[in-house]
Amino acid sequence: MRQRKSFGSDNHAGVHPAVLGAVVDANSGDALPYGADVWTEQATAGLREIFGAEDAFLVLNGSGANIFGLSLLLRRHEAVICAESAHINTDECGSSERLLGAKLLLVSAPDGKITPELIAEKLSGRGDDHRSQPGVVAITQSTEFGTCYTLAELQKIADFCHASDLRLYLDGARLANAAAGLDCSLAELAECADVLSFGGTKNGAMGAEALIVMRSGLAADAPYLRKQQTQLISKMRFVAAQFNALLHDDLWRANATHANAMARRLAEGAAAVDGVEIIHPVQANAVFARLHPRHIAALQRRWTFHVWDERQSVVRWMAAFDTTEADVDTFLASIRETAGTQS
Amino acid sequence: MRQRKSFGSDNHAGVHPAVLGAVVDANSGDALPYGADVWTEQATAGLREIFGAEDAFLVLNGSGANIFGLSLLLRRHEAVICAESAHINTDECGSSERLLGAKLLLVSAPDGKITPELIAEKLSGRGDDHRSQPGVVAITQSTEFGTCYTLAELQKIADFCHASDLRLYLDGARLANAAAGLDCSLAELAECADVLSFGGTKNGAMGAEALIVMRSGLAADAPYLRKQQTQLISKMRFVAAQFNALLHDDLWRANATHANAMARRLAEGAAAVDGVEIIHPVQANAVFARLHPRHIAALQRRWTFHVWDERQSVVRWMAAFDTTEADVDTFLASIRETAGTQS
Amino acid sequence: MRQRKSFGSDNHAGVHPAVLGAVVDANSGDALPYGADVWTEQATAGLREIFGAEDAFLVLNGSGANIFGLSLLLRRHEAVICAESAHINTDECGSSERLLGAKLLLVSAPDGKITPELIAEKLSGRGDDHRSQPGVVAITQSTEFGTCYTLAELQKIADFCHASDLRLYLDGARLANAAAGLDCSLAELAECADVLSFGGTKNGAMGAEALIVMRSGLAADAPYLRKQQTQLISKMRFVAAQFNALLHDDLWRANATHANAMARRLAEGAAAVDGVEIIHPVQANAVFARLHPRHIAALQRRWTFHVWDERQSVVRWMAAFDTTEADVDTFLASIRETAGTQS
Amino acid sequence: MRQRKSFGSDNHAGVHPAVLGAVVDANSGDALPYGADVWTEQATAGLREIFGAEDAFLVLNGSGANIFGLSLLLRRHEAVICAESAHINTDECGSSERLLGAKLLLVSAPDGKITPELIAEKLSGRGDDHRSQPGVVAITQSTEFGTCYTLAELQKIADFCHASDLRLYLDGARLANAAAGLDCSLAELAECADVLSFGGTKNGAMGAEALIVMRSGLAADAPYLRKQQTQLISKMRFVAAQFNALLHDDLWRANATHANAMARRLAEGAAAVDGVEIIHPVQANAVFARLHPRHIAALQRRWTFHVWDERQSVVRWMAAFDTTEADVDTFLASIRETAGTQS
Repeated sequence: MRQRKSFGSDNHAGVHPAVLGAVVDANSGDALPYGADVWTEQATAGLREIFGAEDAFLVLNGSGANIFGLSLLLRRHEAVICAESAHINTDECGSSERLLGAKLLLVSAPDGKITPELIAEKLSGRGDDHRSQPGVVAITQSTEFGTCYTLAELQKIADFCHASDLRLYLDGARLANAAAGLDCSLAELAECADVLSFGGTKNGAMGAEALIVMRSGLAADAPYLRKQQTQLISKMRFVAAQFNALLHDDLWRANATHANAMARRLAEGAAAVDGVEIIHPVQANAVFARLHPRHIAALQRRWTFHVWDERQSVVRWMAAFDTTEADVDTFLASIRETAGTQS
Repeated sequence: MRQRKSFGSDNHAGVHPAVLGAVVDANSGDALPYGADVWTEQATAGLREIFGAEDAFLVLNGSGANIFGLSLLLRRHEAVICAESAHINTDECGSSERLLGAKLLLVSAPDGKITPELIAEKLSGRGDDHRSQPGVVAITQSTEFGTCYTLAELQKIADFCHASDLRLYLDGARLANAAAGLDCSLAELAECADVLSFGGTKNGAMGAEALIVMRSGLAADAPYLRKQQTQLISKMRFVAAQFNALLHDDLWRANATHANAMARRLAEGAAAVDGVEIIHPVQANAVFARLHPRHIAALQRRWTFHVWDERQSVVRWMAAFDTTEADVDTFLASIRETAGTQS
Repeated sequence: MRQRKSFGSDNHAGVHPAVLGAVVDANSGDALPYGADVWTEQATAGLREIFGAEDAFLVLNGSGANIFGLSLLLRRHEAVICAESAHINTDECGSSERLLGAKLLLVSAPDGKITPELIAEKLSGRGDDHRSQPGVVAITQSTEFGTCYTLAELQKIADFCHASDLRLYLDGARLANAAAGLDCSLAELAECADVLSFGGTKNGAMGAEALIVMRSGLAADAPYLRKQQTQLISKMRFVAAQFNALLHDDLWRANATHANAMARRLAEGAAAVDGVEIIHPVQANAVFARLHPRHIAALQRRWTFHVWDERQSVVRWMAAFDTTEADVDTFLASIRETAGTQS
Repeated sequence: MRQRKSFGSDNHAGVHPAVLGAVVDANSGDALPYGADVWTEQATAGLREIFGAEDAFLVLNGSGANIFGLSLLLRRHEAVICAESAHINTDECGSSERLLGAKLLLVSAPDGKITPELIAEKLSGRGDDHRSQPGVVAITQSTEFGTCYTLAELQKIADFCHASDLRLYLDGARLANAAAGLDCSLAELAECADVLSFGGTKNGAMGAEALIVMRSGLAADAPYLRKQQTQLISKMRFVAAQFNALLHDDLWRANATHANAMARRLAEGAAAVDGVEIIHPVQANAVFARLHPRHIAALQRRWTFHVWDERQSVVRWMAAFDTTEADVDTFLASIRETAGTQS
């Protein structure tokens, strides 16, 4: 019998067969290490093209991409403005502070999306040498709450940043889901940013992320910083091969579109259940729902997912590239059964 | 026609078929991320056992392992005593200084092996608050010059360190080659150290290193520090699977023994050529040779390897798990031809 | 004519004559540098005694003391829980993040005083290696809002910290004002803390702060860390002499008692003026008042003080060791005149 | 009886009466803190003028000045080339590594003076992302060995640096002694550098150093970095007043000229003693001498000075602004007596 699909995270999934095939195929004799190989050349060329980017660098994980990207943008006395819910604040064990020495200036954004108004609130100490100086705004697309900035919203933030001498970093660990959700190109999403990450891992890769540099002049130190931050591996071709597979025939988009559709199917089904409230718009592959704590406990006995906020009784359910309609429907049946019988 | 084998580095090689097979096999549905999976459980249990270790942690590359390991051992005001040739000094773009804030106190060790006498020279500033305080000694086994510390030499260093309130870190990116070269167990090599790394990548893995903690009490902060240092990936099972393959039936030892044998074959063959001088004992899988600059240039037109020291006219040739006798012999023929015709 | 007294900060004041006299007297020929002099011996002995402390170290300013103190208490992956209003968060240009690599976990404390309940809220991520781990609680006494923790409140925080494996740091830049305000000893205030600072500068010194280590075992690295953090000067006797003057006959307490009394006189007088609202209890030497923005502007044309919160129309007035009753009364007359004529 | 003058260091001396007088005079009522006072305005204007500098910043000690200055010049992946004997390497407890994250690339310069040739040796890893990239050259003037770079030597280094995309930092803790020794202006000495420090403390101040920024564009972040690095104090006027006294009528030059002359007198006298060898040219205020270990021990029973190199049996004797001819002659008598009777 097939194991129950996890709704815990898109990183509970394995690797897409095409990605795994590309990894296997890359094992063909010797290659120059540290990215001086043809797979890496192809992957970075492909990324530069699809993003309309100045340069692209392969790295090993999302935290690594975030630290690397911010390090290209920050001066020593500068701080990063980001949402309280940002991955760099909540899920990287203080890497930004430890590895970059940067203060995070947190704004409260209930749906994970920050705005020019929220950014503006953090600029009051500008020019005062006692205050850490805001230098970079970091946003996540799609956000940690499964919402997406529209292109218009991104443009407003970018305009505000450029008018305010702020650089813009975009954490794109789930950028593919945003592109699929907004039905737009990666280049359109990236245009607002100075530097961004593009996640492969949650999209069906084994472990492959990219850092995309959009503005000329920002990439000069990048090779050194990637190495210094321990995000370079010798057999880089096996990372590059993963991206080559994802970029081929836009597999990344197919994977993201599917995951988003499964999340929507789950949200729609769950919303119809009494006692289940969907609390954020489902614009990517995550569903945030409020249930009675007893129902959460009951569901967790059979299914894998995160309680996001215990006090608020909110859970997160995520769909992946390999979540099937049957997976969703079986889960929905459990939800209906649980919430129905115990309310 | 098969491409010419690279003698540039053991990381030019691809992945051992058994390792690749294990990676492919690990792609079986969902798994809990960040190392909470059965592959990781198996790998870390295996490593703890083979090393007689307190704990083991999987990481992504050698630089990451070194930084991680040193971070378990260093206090804020402490420095690391190491050989000038140490990887942490020469090949990690200043990670020790940037990520750890640690000064390296360099000793000159022509064969890459440091001694109690060399360590003692760096202790003169002890107790003087103007001087960075030596806290850790870092050695590499096998060394960057392809030499090995004997078990007796390790013991002397360990004794000195323990008597001098110094902790001992061992960079084991090529520990397998040392174990094979010395015909001893990993546990015997590890015993001297407080913390060490164990390299999989250069031994036939795709990208897999381990940090081995030998003393109790040193591992408490390790999970946090690994995450903070961006050396944790979500789909950790694919790293763990590599170690499981290497540990199975001591594949790691077979790979290392073979690579060492190929290096010895190369060294013996080359030593017989007029104008080629082997300058370090070949105790692992590296051969350091001095040739006339013209011969180096001529060889490099057909073969891939590093000029280690241009001024001294010294090159490094490395054998890998997949270097064949035929590869070595073809290369030797080139060496003979080159050195013979142009001297 | 005497210049108008500043109510901007207690650091606008000059140096108490006895302190200046001690500095002048210390200029008597040669002395061993870096604190190996008799003045420093006397000062640190005096501080150890008055605080019942394990050890005491002289430093150059409040930010330096805070960074130094926290560095004795923090491990690499640990964060500091503090009030949003804490000096280490708002006024040190990100030193904690840059020099210590530490994340600050901010709690909202409208009167500047944090509580076990507020601390507890920040402990939810304990044991999760994705989250920066709370290791230290930092409080300020007297707080940035001129309030004081009572001894009972301190005890509750200390009990909570010790029960929760948290160390307690106390920023005592204005500890003298707290001791005077609470009519207790420095030792009673310090007892709760593992490490604390004791400010001389705002109490009438030229530039002299002390770091007080209350627990044995915490001071071992201190000499190195002070030097590394550039808080050691060669002619340390001139810093020590300042403390010797302040400790002599409890000059520190007389200075603080006087400043507190002047703040109270100002607060009481201002509270009687229509349109002036005193918004925090005046328990030390600071007065926080709400006035109409027009009145603030009018007063600032003649007097020096800070607008603390422009949106809330809140100002801060501070008294110093050398603020006279006449200074206060003249200022009060201005306040009455301004608020009276323009309301 | 007057205590025996210390020859241990120029920082064993007290404060020049004019400097102390200026400190006392600065205690005249209130002043805006953190350098927004007239004393600081005067001091920085004076420093800008005398150096022909873009900007000048007051700091608290030499280590602070060095870290601050280097922080204006270094990118994250860059290293500092300096002499093994440089204060930043040997006497700052690893501040460069800890606070800046910078690797020091050490060159061996027996007389403390580095050369373009020595710098060039450290450039071999340029462009290799595995190697920390040389970004700054740091020199000391006068050097830790009491020698001085001539203006021509400085120019050669500066030319080399500019041609090699290296910035030049000059540690001028004893720059006054160099200007006096070379009979040139501070501006002439500073011209070569991008940023330099100018030491007041060893020249007769209580504790006052300045950071001088020579190139436009380099000072933009300086106020923030000084604060972040804890080198700003609130009552800055008392630091500024010291510089105002030193700059008045070139007191700094008189002090340095005198100290240099006393060192020369000592060196000449000692050189005439059998068994005393002066091992470095005496171009500033330090004398390095080789004596028999027994003579060193005998002298140290009566006089204060440092054994610089125990193995080489080398001592350092320093003269200060307040060393008198009588002090020198008494010391010389001891030297003669010691070396004469025991050889």
